[in-house]
Amino acid sequence: MSTAPHDRLSINQATIKYAPLAEALAVTADAGIGSIGLWRDSVQAVSLPEAARLLTRSGLRFSSLCRGGFFTVPEGPARRSAMEDNRRAIEETARLADAGAPGSAAVLVMVAGGLPQGSRDIAGARSMVEDALAELAPVAAAAGVRLALEPLHPMYAADRAVISTLGQALDLAAPFDPAVVGVVVDTFHVWWDPDLDAQIARAGREDRIASYQVCDWRTPLEADVLLSRHYPGAGIVDFASITTAVERVGYRGDVEVEIFNQEIWDTAPATAVARTIDGFQSAVAPHLAARYAGARR
Amino acid sequence: MSTAPHDRLSINQATIKYAPLAEALAVTADAGIGSIGLWRDSVQAVSLPEAARLLTRSGLRFSSLCRGGFFTVPEGPARRSAMEDNRRAIEETARLADAGAPGSAAVLVMVAGGLPQGSRDIAGARSMVEDALAELAPVAAAAGVRLALEPLHPMYAADRAVISTLGQALDLAAPFDPAVVGVVVDTFHVWWDPDLDAQIARAGREDRIASYQVCDWRTPLEADVLLSRHYPGAGIVDFASITTAVERVGYRGDVEVEIFNQEIWDTAPATAVARTIDGFQSAVAPHLAARYAGARR
Repeated sequence: MSTAPHDRLSINQATIKYAPLAEALAVTADAGIGSIGLWRDSVQAVSLPEAARLLTRSGLRFSSLCRGGFFTVPEGPARRSAMEDNRRAIEETARLADAGAPGSAAVLVMVAGGLPQGSRDIAGARSMVEDALAELAPVAAAAGVRLALEPLHPMYAADRAVISTLGQALDLAAPFDPAVVGVVVDTFHVWWDPDLDAQIARAGREDRIASYQVCDWRTPLEADVLLSRHYPGAGIVDFASITTAVERVGYRGDVEVEIFNQEIWDTAPATAVARTIDGFQSAVAPHLAARYAGARR
Repeated sequence: MSTAPHDRLSINQATIKYAPLAEALAVTADAGIGSIGLWRDSVQAVSLPEAARLLTRSGLRFSSLCRGGFFTVPEGPARRSAMEDNRRAIEETARLADAGAPGSAAVLVMVAGGLPQGSRDIAGARSMVEDALAELAPVAAAAGVRLALEPLHPMYAADRAVISTLGQALDLAAPFDPAVVGVVVDTFHVWWDPDLDAQIARAGREDRIASYQVCDWRTPLEADVLLSRHYPGAGIVDFASITTAVERVGYRGDVEVEIFNQEIWDTAPATAVARTIDGFQSAVAPHLAARYAGARR
């Protein structure tokens, strides 16, 4: 790379999954990238105060915490435990957003959860998500944190997320203040949606886009479909059109590259980051506004 | 099985993929099933006239031919060849529907095709489907054949079908006479759709349901996601609610069980048919009207 990476590029830590937090921060900053999205397990591995300290010292912005959610649990101790865990995730998000460089976003990515064990009732599972949001939104509001509902690709609807489209995520967000409940637009999950342009436009009008994540789709899918994400440009996602649409409706926050892929995880983190920059610069950056201007906090 | 299979059950030949046509007809009829959906390769393997003769002799209804489509080819010789092939498929459908028992349906299942090689332009691919339908609808109308657009699960959008939702299929069908262009509702492809109930109701109002196909979704998906279909009842599809919705809007045709699954293909065809009956009787049949009353032809 001869040029600096785009200043809105953020490395989602999942892309370099095996790097502990200190290393993840270092390889990201050393590559000239300005922002990072963190995962709770790596934060908890060093403790929240230590993670906050490391983040501040890195000079990086914090673009999101992955993740809360997994709400599709019937009422009872397991659900209470899930809700408690989400409250902790909200606190972590607030703390990390404060610790990150100016322009950090207090965004907690929420994955809904799949069907409860043994259940075929997807409508029921979706209503459990509604209930959980109603319970957590005031907590998030008090903490200054934005819950970002992430629609996942419909191939994950049974076992991971009963929120499958951007339109559905926006419907779920609708009762709440957009500063408290937003949505994630992740190219991998939504590129196929015939209603995508209309729903991105709607998300813009309703001021709901809390995070824009990019990675590519390539066939054949990997044997484990969870690990089928690729560097931008390696597959068939039309980053020009989706990025332009997200940009047009006013999103100016960081753009995370989040890749789950065993081969990429087996790459040295600095190499994976360099390849991420390459893919981002050619596939995504040309369609982004030149300067970061998205500070919510 | 102590009771006879439901009289609207149809075996889609893909479920017993390795049985040649004569054997497929025999195991289906011998199991007391009244209807079969055929695949073009097995018909062509014996010739259309011979296939028609065998079908008539079997006494079975013909519920559909799989499949036409694969329209996402830029204009040129390859597209002309695809269109010619679709014209032949229309002729085959008409001939087989005439050869089947009373109540046979002259339905040609259409799979749209994925992105053209090297393309990222899904909107462009979708407009190729529109153009192809405009070209083929008069041919189908003249032959008394109904083209049945099948939305495939979004995990196949890149490499198999750029029609991903029932709503999108209905939009594509809208310009045409419902007797000429309909849609397929296949539980495996649509069960996850948050808009499913509304779109089934719309499909009923617009008289577009040409075929209802059932099989189950189970996680983890098979390494080859094409082969992840299961017997009804083996997974998480809510056949009660989807079947009731399809029934409520007036569909009274045959209900095909179409399964792509290597383990099931490796089962003796008569055994696979017996297991299909078991699954259908417990998961689907209780939600179906008792008698076949769907003859379009």
